[in-house]
Amino acid sequence: MVIAAHPDDPEFGCAGTVMKWAQAGRHVTYVLLTSGDKGTPDPEVRPGRLATRRESEQRQAAAELGVAQVIFLRHPDGMLENTMELRRQLAAMIREHRPNIVVAIDPWRHYQLHPDHRAAGQAALDAVYAAREWHIFPEQLVDGVDPWRAKELYLFWTENADYWEDISCCIEARIAALMRHASQITDVEKLAERIRQRARDAGEKAGLDAAEEFKRFQF
Amino acid sequence: MVIAAHPDDPEFGCAGTVMKWAQAGRHVTYVLLTSGDKGTPDPEVRPGRLATRRESEQRQAAAELGVAQVIFLRHPDGMLENTMELRRQLAAMIREHRPNIVVAIDPWRHYQLHPDHRAAGQAALDAVYAAREWHIFPEQLVDGVDPWRAKELYLFWTENADYWEDISCCIEARIAALMRHASQITDVEKLAERIRQRARDAGEKAGLDAAEEFKRFQF
Amino acid sequence: MVIAAHPDDPEFGCAGTVMKWAQAGRHVTYVLLTSGDKGTPDPEVRPGRLATRRESEQRQAAAELGVAQVIFLRHPDGMLENTMELRRQLAAMIREHRPNIVVAIDPWRHYQLHPDHRAAGQAALDAVYAAREWHIFPEQLVDGVDPWRAKELYLFWTENADYWEDISCCIEARIAALMRHASQITDVEKLAERIRQRARDAGEKAGLDAAEEFKRFQF
Amino acid sequence: MVIAAHPDDPEFGCAGTVMKWAQAGRHVTYVLLTSGDKGTPDPEVRPGRLATRRESEQRQAAAELGVAQVIFLRHPDGMLENTMELRRQLAAMIREHRPNIVVAIDPWRHYQLHPDHRAAGQAALDAVYAAREWHIFPEQLVDGVDPWRAKELYLFWTENADYWEDISCCIEARIAALMRHASQITDVEKLAERIRQRARDAGEKAGLDAAEEFKRFQF
Amino acid sequence: MVIAAHPDDPEFGCAGTVMKWAQAGRHVTYVLLTSGDKGTPDPEVRPGRLATRRESEQRQAAAELGVAQVIFLRHPDGMLENTMELRRQLAAMIREHRPNIVVAIDPWRHYQLHPDHRAAGQAALDAVYAAREWHIFPEQLVDGVDPWRAKELYLFWTENADYWEDISCCIEARIAALMRHASQITDVEKLAERIRQRARDAGEKAGLDAAEEFKRFQF
Amino acid sequence: MVIAAHPDDPEFGCAGTVMKWAQAGRHVTYVLLTSGDKGTPDPEVRPGRLATRRESEQRQAAAELGVAQVIFLRHPDGMLENTMELRRQLAAMIREHRPNIVVAIDPWRHYQLHPDHRAAGQAALDAVYAAREWHIFPEQLVDGVDPWRAKELYLFWTENADYWEDISCCIEARIAALMRHASQITDVEKLAERIRQRARDAGEKAGLDAAEEFKRFQF
Repeated sequence: MVIAAHPDDPEFGCAGTVMKWAQAGRHVTYVLLTSGDKGTPDPEVRPGRLATRRESEQRQAAAELGVAQVIFLRHPDGMLENTMELRRQLAAMIREHRPNIVVAIDPWRHYQLHPDHRAAGQAALDAVYAAREWHIFPEQLVDGVDPWRAKELYLFWTENADYWEDISCCIEARIAALMRHASQITDVEKLAERIRQRARDAGEKAGLDAAEEFKRFQF
Repeated sequence: MVIAAHPDDPEFGCAGTVMKWAQAGRHVTYVLLTSGDKGTPDPEVRPGRLATRRESEQRQAAAELGVAQVIFLRHPDGMLENTMELRRQLAAMIREHRPNIVVAIDPWRHYQLHPDHRAAGQAALDAVYAAREWHIFPEQLVDGVDPWRAKELYLFWTENADYWEDISCCIEARIAALMRHASQITDVEKLAERIRQRARDAGEKAGLDAAEEFKRFQF
Repeated sequence: MVIAAHPDDPEFGCAGTVMKWAQAGRHVTYVLLTSGDKGTPDPEVRPGRLATRRESEQRQAAAELGVAQVIFLRHPDGMLENTMELRRQLAAMIREHRPNIVVAIDPWRHYQLHPDHRAAGQAALDAVYAAREWHIFPEQLVDGVDPWRAKELYLFWTENADYWEDISCCIEARIAALMRHASQITDVEKLAERIRQRARDAGEKAGLDAAEEFKRFQF
Repeated sequence: MVIAAHPDDPEFGCAGTVMKWAQAGRHVTYVLLTSGDKGTPDPEVRPGRLATRRESEQRQAAAELGVAQVIFLRHPDGMLENTMELRRQLAAMIREHRPNIVVAIDPWRHYQLHPDHRAAGQAALDAVYAAREWHIFPEQLVDGVDPWRAKELYLFWTENADYWEDISCCIEARIAALMRHASQITDVEKLAERIRQRARDAGEKAGLDAAEEFKRFQF
Repeated sequence: MVIAAHPDDPEFGCAGTVMKWAQAGRHVTYVLLTSGDKGTPDPEVRPGRLATRRESEQRQAAAELGVAQVIFLRHPDGMLENTMELRRQLAAMIREHRPNIVVAIDPWRHYQLHPDHRAAGQAALDAVYAAREWHIFPEQLVDGVDPWRAKELYLFWTENADYWEDISCCIEARIAALMRHASQITDVEKLAERIRQRARDAGEKAGLDAAEEFKRFQF
Repeated sequence: MVIAAHPDDPEFGCAGTVMKWAQAGRHVTYVLLTSGDKGTPDPEVRPGRLATRRESEQRQAAAELGVAQVIFLRHPDGMLENTMELRRQLAAMIREHRPNIVVAIDPWRHYQLHPDHRAAGQAALDAVYAAREWHIFPEQLVDGVDPWRAKELYLFWTENADYWEDISCCIEARIAALMRHASQITDVEKLAERIRQRARDAGEKAGLDAAEEFKRFQF
């Protein structure tokens, strides 16, 4: 399960890894906290319209990567806060979908300037913790819903990577998926090159041609 | 759409009316903010277990009344607060289900001692207002989801009734539905008689044998 | 000082009284908590644009009534909450402008369905209380800013009126001022007649031809 | 158990009744949410100093009435809010002291202008409800602390009185106790006469010489 | 004064140091924000029961270490938030107990995944700051309660240690104390060895056989 | 625009740089979130009095540095929280004043023990982000107020400096300005020497005699 703040966050952060996992037969679910409804410099584009377009872009990108399911929680873009209510909602997601792996944004990254990214990352982690306890949010634990203990946690956009996933196989396909977020992209070639460079840089640390990097926790 | 705090609130408050409407072909949806997970004097009954049982009781009761759909939001029983987040969630419900009529608890009732009842009523009303505006919670207004303007609002458990629904047809069937909430009922006969008496009292004000009473708004 | 939630609230609620007071030489200030930025059924009208228009309408209406000053706090329309922060902001207003009379919306009115109206009324009253204390919000009490004790409080949109202001003099001028809020009005004649009727109804209770009614407190 | 916002609230609202109950052998506990630390027109009196004095006045007044125990929670005067945290704290009080009767301020009173009085009243009532449930605030229910169900609830400063306590016996002693709050009283004689008048007015409704009035609930 | 989130936090983090200080005649107080009421994988163990057991375990462990006093604030385990209300409560503790040294969890530690640990650490630090100011929470400063300025601050579970306490004397006694938290421990030997290893690792940095490490501030 | 928590924060953190910029013709605005109303060890100094004095000190210091404008938001000292409401207020400031550069406190600094400094820094950064979006706080975007995209962000009190401003020109003048905050300074010479030393230390990293250091972002 990938928990992120906006459509395109997964494709910017961990799409190669997602693709490999999907190809290996894993069932991948995206949970998008917002639908990116405010991400436009054009005042005449209404938030709901933009959300429609971005959800569609996200579904296409996810489909290309082999993601099985995309869930939109439609919180307001740009105004996410790590409240107990959001933790509750994400814990319910985790308890329902029972992911072995949760992928999220690293909220401890210095100078993570986007408030949504900090809030989304922290809420995801706090929900992973809450989801496994019988006595936290016990109202969710109706028959068929049990506490769930994710086995691994991968944080992307991190400055403390300790795990590198080789994405040589998938670098171009992953860039193609990113390009589905056309509403957010101005210079396609420049962005593609930026992603390639970033994959090379990450790979270099691990002796790989191209990699995505994560801070990983195994419980 | 009936918005209430706990399983059994609708059956206590407006089940006869619901039954008549359902028989008349109206599509009735229940939205239960909590699953009543704390409603037991037995400390050994876990909240999740109780929620399971009460959701089942609520589904049975609703089925007997002809309710088409029952939705549980699973907020924690006994701790509801009328937050902007709850308003957002209920506005999304209203925009998705597009009810002509919203039925809710009257939050202005003097000495409504249950905090959940006040919160549920107020949140429902504030959501009715929010749901109709293009620029409130615009992130919800993706294609296929538009603002929605409920046409009527019925408040039950009110001390300012101005509308009485004749439920002579349905009084016993409505009591039978209430009895489905077995986990909450100790003396079946006494409760049945209490409901009958209340229906007679309400009816008397309107020259009816048996009635349920509401404060009604038509927009 | 008139504290209200939206442009047009004062003109709907107390404009005749305001006009009389202004004509009698009183210095009247409007404090508008929001600029009514969401008050449109047209999704293509941006909130900022609408706020611009409504602030302009409000300034015109106020000018016609003789209001000396109009202050817009630009909170988000439709989402007001009676927070400690809003109380602090209004207490600062009261301490700065030192009004003898504060006019506000009655938040206790049963079935005041607009959440902004309840919040605006309650926040105004709580601020009147806070403003007079030396030890509440003491950070505001720099030289030249002292606690301030309003002498009278008038609540409009009330169901417990105990004061009627004769507005026979001003009923048509007051309706003209209301008409400045053209963005919010569809049927001019119908609205004018509604205001006239309401003034007659209120007046009747006090033996006047036309009145506005208030719940009044004198401290 | 009397739950009130400020020192002197009990003596203004229900001291005659408290005295009768104490004389009849009941164990009365006062819980004061604030120590009235902001109740002075003199900017040079520090809040802590005033709190010291008012706690002392309250202890003296309580002692004269026969109150067994006075507890000060020392929330900030003038800024009480009915939060879940305050409800939790009051529920713990109720579970610890196990009162048969809870006396509190009526929060539904129209035009209860003091925000602390509304908050204190509502929090007390919500805590009475919470205190009796096994699954609300379960972290408090360590050995020796059980849920507690108050048997009666008396609300003072109400406009819906349905119970009158004859205080003919105690009217002067009760006024004497009130006078202990010397920091809050300017004209002793005027105040004494006001209390006498109020007791006469309340008594008249019930055919008594002097009474205190309450909205009463028996569970 | 040691401020921690759960029973067993002090024994995991700083028990050797506590023991040395107690033996040296210092008066040590524990403040536990929660009673660890949710720390069980067994759904049938009620939170209150577990809290009872864990408070008892904590008292035993503290007694063995020579801790003079253990205070339980009984906030809900797993749901701590660093609110102004918690800061207020901890500032009152500090002002009452007047500790020269405050020991707390380092909230800045990267990947401190337990939300309670972050909240408890931050709240403790913010309270240390607040406690020393005359004008913060002035309602607490009744006679006998003055602002209090802790002289030193020790943070445990830190990645920026700059102080190492030699605990060679006490390593086994400290492990024994930890073992009192039997409800939280599955493999006694493995845990003991883990603690020994950690003490050796910490000691190595400072040329000691066994140490506990802290980020220390001296004011 | 320099956004800081208290009067004297800018003079402690970035006054030399401010002076150079002002001398180079840049229009510098200070936004002070609090007026430092609690910064005294003397309980008899009222917060409002102290705020008066500190605002005056701040105005003098700013004048000497060539700052064009000083704005005081008068939030309560010592109790700042990074709320959505504060973000809204700062976004309005940025949209109104349209600064090319925003200078703020680095909220990521480890062991930034002052809660106001963390809150002020984070709120400033989140406001920079919000200010540039058309659909965040749209109620502010009336005619004449547009989204605003700051071009550079300088964070002071940082442990990750990547920009050093040569302040050799201004070190003594900047110290003189700091000395205007006489209410906060006990040992003038010691403080002056501390500032000189800090400037030398910062300068050394960049091969300068005296510098102020920043973490800088260019967008």
